[in-house]
Formats: sequence, structure tokens, C-alpha cells
Amino acid sequence: MDRKPLILLTNDDSIKAPGLRFLIECVRPFGKVVVVAPDRPQSGTAHAVTVNHPLRIELLKKEKDYEEYTCNGTPADCVKLAFKVILKKRADFLFSGINHGANSSINIIYSGTMAAVFEGAMAGVSSAGFSLADYSMNADFKPSAVYIKKIISEVIKNKLPQGVCLNVNIPAIPAKKIRGIKVCRQAEGTWQEDFDERTDPHGHKYYWMTGVFVKTGHGKDADEWALEHNYIAVVPVHFDFTANKALKPISDWFS
Amino acid sequence: MDRKPLILLTNDDSIKAPGLRFLIECVRPFGKVVVVAPDRPQSGTAHAVTVNHPLRIELLKKEKDYEEYTCNGTPADCVKLAFKVILKKRADFLFSGINHGANSSINIIYSGTMAAVFEGAMAGVSSAGFSLADYSMNADFKPSAVYIKKIISEVIKNKLPQGVCLNVNIPAIPAKKIRGIKVCRQAEGTWQEDFDERTDPHGHKYYWMTGVFVKTGHGKDADEWALEHNYIAVVPVHFDFTANKALKPISDWFS
Repeated sequence: MDRKPLILLTNDDSIKAPGLRFLIECVRPFGKVVVVAPDRPQSGTAHAVTVNHPLRIELLKKEKDYEEYTCNGTPADCVKLAFKVILKKRADFLFSGINHGANSSINIIYSGTMAAVFEGAMAGVSSAGFSLADYSMNADFKPSAVYIKKIISEVIKNKLPQGVCLNVNIPAIPAKKIRGIKVCRQAEGTWQEDFDERTDPHGHKYYWMTGVFVKTGHGKDADEWALEHNYIAVVPVHFDFTANKALKPISDWFS
Repeated sequence: MDRKPLILLTNDDSIKAPGLRFLIECVRPFGKVVVVAPDRPQSGTAHAVTVNHPLRIELLKKEKDYEEYTCNGTPADCVKLAFKVILKKRADFLFSGINHGANSSINIIYSGTMAAVFEGAMAGVSSAGFSLADYSMNADFKPSAVYIKKIISEVIKNKLPQGVCLNVNIPAIPAKKIRGIKVCRQAEGTWQEDFDERTDPHGHKYYWMTGVFVKTGHGKDADEWALEHNYIAVVPVHFDFTANKALKPISDWFS
């Protein structure tokens, strides 16, 4: 690549989130960086897109090889607006995060961080999402910096196979405890929801959703195992959801 | 199964949508039916869940072997509330739809209809989503009734393999043109977005998202081909997004 690569950054914790600020610092040495991030937290929005109200874009900063925008949409909206309206072309690379909280195992399905990454991959852009296993807004991202830069540099050097993107999860531990990077599959797991039932001043019931993530598989080749054993987990993911093994048995139902 | 199966129904077009009303009529002969559907349209919500505001449930109807509830959440919220608060247990089966508009190919990723189905499958419930390739609220669901009942009866008879659910898409054509049911894989495709730029009375720009779906693959084994050739497309899908073929090449980056 003769010119500097054009790199789109986004997240789902909003333009103000420390995790995004940290990622910006990691990525800037690699090329021209354009940030397009939601104007408010969008955790749990998954792959939602905004079709029933209009979107607005605000330019926040413009300097040499760096621009920063915010919009009133979801992470998926940010990517679509970036490619079509702001950049008027696709970026060369897309990085999303660093999310405050893990998106390992089936948490990927609820994740706005990873929705942006899928959106990039569907547009043919090499894309990766980063998440730290610490929900706090004061989470310490520094221990992972060297690994994040390594992953970014490999994505830029090799590009990702068509249709494949990366879900990177980082354990919340001191730098000296991190054992390295492990490429793995998505672990089996589920959420056990609970609903906190309350009564409003008018006597009507309402519910707050809470819950705990429960690992249901224990393979050493899975992302949950890697995180528990102090590795940074890198899962190559795709957006072909076909359950290939089920094609034959389900076909037999209708033959 | 000695007792009547307990069947949860939901959708993303709201409790009032004609597609849901049609699905209720198709499903009622098969068991005890509980409907829990959003109180307003939720198209494009994907797998969003509501964690930042409280959820409310309203009982609309209760008769022998039939109950109907609405809530102010997303399709995924409806399923979680149904299992944990309303039924206080998992249903035996979950059916979602009939969506007004196709969820074939990569449209599954934006679909609230299919988010509910994934939510069921993640809880271990045999689940299937139905979508008709007609966005109109006056869409004609009748031509597909016999096929929908066939699919429901096969799901109830055989149950789905653990972790697998069905994405059923129906062409919007007269009954006599439907050539049957075809089990297929998810087709390659993408959305080419466009943003309709306007200026508000205060001189600020805003954007409405529009776009067209573009098929990018042409396999005869894919859902888009089936729909174009007047088949009802049944794609077995799962929520393990691991791109298995990419595990080795990406591992090599870090070895």
C-alpha cells in the first residue's frame, strides 16, 4: 500500500468512552484515522439500525491524518454513515472498541462493538473488535497495549480473508500476567436472566433485566478458556450463520 | 409428549401485526399457545436487549390453552420475559413472525424476528422464524398456510438439534405457484445503503437511511435462489459464529 491506510474507528460505549480514547492512541501510528462513534452509550444494541428516525452527524475534530465525528445512531449506523456520507468510500480497515466488558462466547450476539465489526466485514473491509473483561469506566487498558498493537499490525499486514473478522477479548489482569495471544473458537455459554420486579407509585409492576453469564462448555480451544487462563482470546468469526451439519437431517424432514 | 406442548409465539412487527395474527391461527391447533410480543414495531432492532430502562408486561387475553401478552421491549426481551416471568419456565417450542418482509441471506443479522428465534435456541428451545417477502401490512399470508403448518408439525415431531434453529422465508406468490419447501444455506448478499440528505428548518443537515439488498452469490443451494424460484426457503442456522476455516491461518500470524 503506497498511501497511508485509511482506518475507521468506532465503538458502542460512545465517543466519550475511555476504551475508545485508548484505541485511538493505539491505532494512530498506523495510518489516517477517522473516528465515527455514537453520541451516547449503545451497549446491548446488537446489530440494530436506525430506519424510523433521521440521523445527524457532528464533526468534533479535524487535524492532519485525524478526524473525529459523532452521530445519534447505533454502531452499525456509524459504519454505514462513515462509508457512505463521511468518507464517501470504504475504509481500508475498521477497528471497534475497546469495549468496557467482555464480548466473548455468545455475548457477541448482543454486542454493538461486534455489530460494527460485522458491518465492516460485510462491506469487504478487514475489521476487528476489541473488548476488555472489565465493565468499569475506570478500567485499565494499558496492560494490553502491546498486544492490541500487534493484532492491529498483523491485520494491516495480512488483511483478513473475505467475510472473516476478529473478536478480540482481553483479560483484565496486570501486564506481567498476560501469557500471550491465543486464536480460538467461540465458547458455549448462555445468560441466566433474572428480572428484578418492582412496583411503581401507581401500583403497576415493572422489571429490570439482570442476569449472569454461564459457561456451558469447557474446551481448551475456546475463548472463555483462554481468558480464564490469562490469554488474549482472538476468535475469527463470520456472518454465514448456516448450521451446515443440520442441512441433511432437516432436508430429510421434507423429502 | 403426554401433555399438550407449550408454544411461545413472538414477532418484531408488534402484537397488532397481521403476520402474527396469521401465525397464531396456524399454531393454535398444535398445543397451548402463549403470545408475548412487542407493543410497537421493532424491525431492525436485531438482537438488542433492554438494560437501561424498565420493562412492563400487559396481559391482553386469557382463555383455555391461549394467553396473549405485550411488553415494551424488543423481541429478545419478550423471550427472556416469557421464560422467566410469564411462564416461569421454558416453552417447549418457539415460533416467531410471520415477519412482513424477507429475512433471507444476511438480512438475518438485522432481524428482530430471528433474534427471538436465536434467543429461544440459546435457551435450548426448538425455535423457528417465519418471514414473507412482502413488507406491506396488507401482505397475503394465506398461500403459505399449508407449508407453515407442515414446518411447525415437523419441528414439533422431530425437535431441532441442540443449538440449531430455522430461518424460514416465504415468497410472496399465489399458492398454486409455490413449488414446495427447500432446505438451503444462507445466500451471500449485502446492503447498498443510501442516505437521503435533508436540511431542517434551522439549517442543520439530517439523513434518512435507505438502501437496496444486493445478492452477491448465485448458488442454487442458497435461500435467495430458492425464493426466486418459488420455493419456501428453510435455512438451519446456529449461533456459533466461529469461522473455522480461518482458525489455522490466523493462528499462524501469532506463532
